[in-house]
Amino acid sequence: MKTFKYKDLDIKYLVEGEGKPLLVLNGIMMTINSWEPIAESFRASNTLIRLDMIDQGQSSKVNYDYTISDQADMIASFIKHLGYPQVSVMGISYGGYVGINLASRYPNLVDRLVLFNTAADVTERDAELFKTFLVTAKGDDPYAFYLATIPQFYGPTWYTTRNDWMLQRESILIEFFKSKDYRETVYRLAKSCLSHDCKDILKNITAHTLIVSGEEDYLLPYPRQQYLHQNIKNSQLLKMAKTGHVSPYENPWAYTSIVYGFINNPVVEFKI
Amino acid sequence: MKTFKYKDLDIKYLVEGEGKPLLVLNGIMMTINSWEPIAESFRASNTLIRLDMIDQGQSSKVNYDYTISDQADMIASFIKHLGYPQVSVMGISYGGYVGINLASRYPNLVDRLVLFNTAADVTERDAELFKTFLVTAKGDDPYAFYLATIPQFYGPTWYTTRNDWMLQRESILIEFFKSKDYRETVYRLAKSCLSHDCKDILKNITAHTLIVSGEEDYLLPYPRQQYLHQNIKNSQLLKMAKTGHVSPYENPWAYTSIVYGFINNPVVEFKI
Amino acid sequence: MKTFKYKDLDIKYLVEGEGKPLLVLNGIMMTINSWEPIAESFRASNTLIRLDMIDQGQSSKVNYDYTISDQADMIASFIKHLGYPQVSVMGISYGGYVGINLASRYPNLVDRLVLFNTAADVTERDAELFKTFLVTAKGDDPYAFYLATIPQFYGPTWYTTRNDWMLQRESILIEFFKSKDYRETVYRLAKSCLSHDCKDILKNITAHTLIVSGEEDYLLPYPRQQYLHQNIKNSQLLKMAKTGHVSPYENPWAYTSIVYGFINNPVVEFKI
Amino acid sequence: MKTFKYKDLDIKYLVEGEGKPLLVLNGIMMTINSWEPIAESFRASNTLIRLDMIDQGQSSKVNYDYTISDQADMIASFIKHLGYPQVSVMGISYGGYVGINLASRYPNLVDRLVLFNTAADVTERDAELFKTFLVTAKGDDPYAFYLATIPQFYGPTWYTTRNDWMLQRESILIEFFKSKDYRETVYRLAKSCLSHDCKDILKNITAHTLIVSGEEDYLLPYPRQQYLHQNIKNSQLLKMAKTGHVSPYENPWAYTSIVYGFINNPVVEFKI
Repeated sequence: MKTFKYKDLDIKYLVEGEGKPLLVLNGIMMTINSWEPIAESFRASNTLIRLDMIDQGQSSKVNYDYTISDQADMIASFIKHLGYPQVSVMGISYGGYVGINLASRYPNLVDRLVLFNTAADVTERDAELFKTFLVTAKGDDPYAFYLATIPQFYGPTWYTTRNDWMLQRESILIEFFKSKDYRETVYRLAKSCLSHDCKDILKNITAHTLIVSGEEDYLLPYPRQQYLHQNIKNSQLLKMAKTGHVSPYENPWAYTSIVYGFINNPVVEFKI
Repeated sequence: MKTFKYKDLDIKYLVEGEGKPLLVLNGIMMTINSWEPIAESFRASNTLIRLDMIDQGQSSKVNYDYTISDQADMIASFIKHLGYPQVSVMGISYGGYVGINLASRYPNLVDRLVLFNTAADVTERDAELFKTFLVTAKGDDPYAFYLATIPQFYGPTWYTTRNDWMLQRESILIEFFKSKDYRETVYRLAKSCLSHDCKDILKNITAHTLIVSGEEDYLLPYPRQQYLHQNIKNSQLLKMAKTGHVSPYENPWAYTSIVYGFINNPVVEFKI
Repeated sequence: MKTFKYKDLDIKYLVEGEGKPLLVLNGIMMTINSWEPIAESFRASNTLIRLDMIDQGQSSKVNYDYTISDQADMIASFIKHLGYPQVSVMGISYGGYVGINLASRYPNLVDRLVLFNTAADVTERDAELFKTFLVTAKGDDPYAFYLATIPQFYGPTWYTTRNDWMLQRESILIEFFKSKDYRETVYRLAKSCLSHDCKDILKNITAHTLIVSGEEDYLLPYPRQQYLHQNIKNSQLLKMAKTGHVSPYENPWAYTSIVYGFINNPVVEFKI
Repeated sequence: MKTFKYKDLDIKYLVEGEGKPLLVLNGIMMTINSWEPIAESFRASNTLIRLDMIDQGQSSKVNYDYTISDQADMIASFIKHLGYPQVSVMGISYGGYVGINLASRYPNLVDRLVLFNTAADVTERDAELFKTFLVTAKGDDPYAFYLATIPQFYGPTWYTTRNDWMLQRESILIEFFKSKDYRETVYRLAKSCLSHDCKDILKNITAHTLIVSGEEDYLLPYPRQQYLHQNIKNSQLLKMAKTGHVSPYENPWAYTSIVYGFINNPVVEFKI
C-alpha cells in the first residue's frame, strides 16, 4: 500500500495491473481489502486503483466532521496526484455518493462512471437509518451496533443461501466492533452522509454512466436508481436479480462482468 | 461471407476479429447485417462469428418444415466445422430459443451463454402471436404483415424517443415485405417456434449463463427470464431499464457492455 | 333494456338494483351482457347502470367517424336524462378512456371514478395495435381479426389455467367475426381511439378516483396507470396479481370487491 | 371496552356496529385505538370487533414467553366466547401472522381473511430485525428503541409527504418509550415472532383470502405475499402503490375500500 498525503492526512491506496485506470470507491464500512475476492476480474485488464477514504481502513482517522464533498475533493486531488487526466470510477453505496459528487463537481476527471446501490441524496427516511448507526456507535453494545448496521445490507436470497457465512461473519464483526475507535469512525462516516444531496447538480455529469440496482436492495431500492437514470444524461440502468445491497459479494459474477464490460467497451457511440 | 455446407444447404457466415470466439444467434427476422451497428464492440477483442440460420438472410431457403432442434443441430455441426472445441454463444429471442436448445443438447460445445429477451418454451399464448405471423405471411397485405410482426417488438420508450426512426423503418420494411418469398421464410421460421419446449432439459446446461430481460419487453416479459434463471444452474439474471424486445438497438451501450464483460471476464469462480 | 334517444341514435341501457348509482362503461368489444357474470356483486347494493355506447351491442351503428369525446358527450347527456345529479363511474380500457374524458370535461357529473386497465392517451405505439384492428376489420379473414384483437387481451396465467375456455371462446368468436357489419363497428370504435389524449385535462378531475392495473396487462402496463395516478389529484393505485387486461373475467373476485368497496365506502376523508 | 377472561388474563375488546362480524388483529405495536381513524368505514356496515392481544394495549401483560400460536389459541377462544360460528378476520403484519396461524389451525372459525403486509414465516433475515427490537427494548435509550422500531415501517412517500406528522409522532413516541414496562411488552411480542412458521400449514386455510402488499413495504416486500398467494388456495393478491408497511395510515382510502368490499361482497363464486 502507498500513501497519498492530503492536507494533514495519510490516504492509503493500492495500484495494481495495467490498462485503463479504474478507481474503486468503498461502501461506508468497506476497505481496500474488501474488494480482494473480486479484484482479479479488474486487475487482469485494467489499472485497478483502490483507496481507503478519510476514516476508512488504513487511512487517517480524524476528530472533526466532514462531508461527502470533502471526500470528493480529496479524491479529485488524488486523481491529479496519480497523474491521470481522468479515470473511470466505480462506487457503491457511500462510494456512490462520493462518485456522484465527484462526477458532478469535477466532471473532467471522470471518464466512465459505474454506480451500484446508491442514490442522489439522503432523504429524511434514509437519515433515520444513519441515525441508528450514530446511536449504536456511541453506545457500548457491539451486538446492537452489528444489528443496526449489517443484516439489512444483505438480501433475502443471500440470507437464505449463505446463512452459514452470515453467522461466521457475525461473530467476526461483533469482535471487531468492540473497538470504540472503529465505531467512532463509522459515526463520522455516517454523519457525513446526512447532508448528501446532489439532486440539483446531476445535470453536470458528462461521464458515460451505468447505474446498477439490486432487486433485493431494500435500503436504496430501484426508484432511487431510476431517479439517477432520469437525471444523468448519458446513463443506462440495470437491475440485478436476487441481489441485495452488497452486490459485489451477493452477485460477484454479474457485478464484475458489468463493470468489466462497461469500462472496457471499445465503443461509446452507436449509430442506430 | 463464407459458406458452410450443411446437408444440402448453404449456411452463410462471417468471422471477424481475434480472441475468444463469440457466436451470435439472430432473432427471427434478423440477419448477419442486423448486428453491424454494434459489432465493433465484439470484434475488437473477440472472434465474432455471425451466421444466417436456415431460412434467414443469405442462407438457403427450404420448402419443408423444421424445428428449433434442427437449427441447433445445424449450429452444432457448424461449431465443429469451424474447429472450435467450444464457443461462447449469445442469442436473442429466436436465437435464444436455439441457444437454449443447443446448450441443453450439446452442453460441451458451449463455453458461456448469454440469453437476451427469450424463453424456455413457446406457450399457448405465445403461439397466438406466431399465428399472426403465419396468417399475415400467407396473406397479401405487406402492411398487415408489418403490423403483425414489428411494432410490438419495440418498447414504449423507443417508440417515443425514436419515432422518426420507426416511421422510416416502417416504409423500408413494408416495401421489403412485398416479397412473398420473404414472407414465406418468416412463415416457416415462425412455424418452427411452435414446438419449442426446453423446460425439461434446461438442467443439462453446464455453461455459465447470463440471462437478460428488457423492462419494456412485453412479448417475453420478466417472469419468463426468471423461469430460465431458476432452472439453469450457473445463471445470473439482469433487467435492462427502458428497453423492449429489440435490446441491441434500444440499448446498444448496455447490451454490448454486458456481453463484452460476461464473455471476457477472466474469472468465473469467486471465493466468497 | 330501455332506449335513450341521443340525437338520431338509440342508446340501449339497463338499470337494475337500488342504492347509489354505478354506471359501467364497456371495453371496446364488450356489451351490456359482458358484465352479467359479475353483475350480482353490484346490483345487490347499488343501482347498476349498464349501456352500450355508440356502435356497441344493441345501440345504433353509425356510418361516420366519432371520437372518445363524442362518446363522453353522449354519456353526459345520458346521466342527465336519468335524472341523477352525479353517478359513480367504472370504466375499463376503452370505457376507461371515456370515463377519463367524462370526468375531465364534466367533473360535476362524476361522484367516484374507478378506472381499470386504461390510460390517459393513445400513444404512437398503442395506435399500431388499433391499426391491426383496422386492417383486419377491413380484411375478410375472421381468424386474422380474432388473432389481431383477442389473444393479447388475456394474461399468461389465464391462458394457462383456462386454456379450454379460450379455445371454446375462439370458435364462438370466429363464427361471430364473420359478420362484416360487426367488424365495421369495431373498425370505427378502434378509429375513435386514435385521437384519445386527456393528458392535459386530467387535472380537472375532482372525483375520488381509484386506478387499477393488471400485473399481466401487457397492452396497457403499469407505467400507464402510474401516470394517471400522478396526474389525478384524489387518486389511489392498485395492482392485481396474475391478472391481464380482461380483469373482470380473469380476477372477478378482486375486481368486484375493489369496486364494491370503493363505491360504497362510507368515508372519503380520513383524519390521519 | 369489555373484558374477555382467558386463562388468568384479561383480554380487552370493543364491539361496535351491526352486520357481518369483522375481527381486526393489530400489528405488533398497535392497539384498539390505533384503528380509530379508519374505524368508521367498517362499523357503518359491519360488526367491528377490535381487541388487544396478550401484551398489547389494555390487555394483561405477562411475565413469560408465548408464541404466535398462543395468541391464535386465545383468539379462537375469543371468537367462541362471542358466540359467532365464524368471523371474517383482517390482520396486519403481526396481526397477519396471528391471522394466518388461526386460519390454518382453526379453519372453521374464519369466514373471509384479509392479510395486509404480512408473511407465512419469520426468516433468519426477518429475525435480525426483531432482535434489534429485543436489544433496544432491554437497553435504556428510548430514542434508540424508536429508531430500531418505527422509521422503517413507513414508506418513502409517507416520509416525504407527511414529514411533519412523523416528527410530531417521534416526540410523542420517544416520551412513551421511556416506560420500561412498555418496552418489555414489545420485547415479548417481538420474541413471540421468532418461531412463526406456517409455511407447511397454509394448505389448511379454507377461507376466501385477500392478500395485500405495500409497494413501498421494504420490511415484508412483495415476494413474501406472492408466497402466501401461491400457497393459499382461494386467494387473491393486490399491491397498493406508494404505500409502506403502515398501510391503514399511509393509504386509508384504499385500505378501507379493499376490506369493505372484500368482506361484504355478496358473491364469492363467479361462473366464468
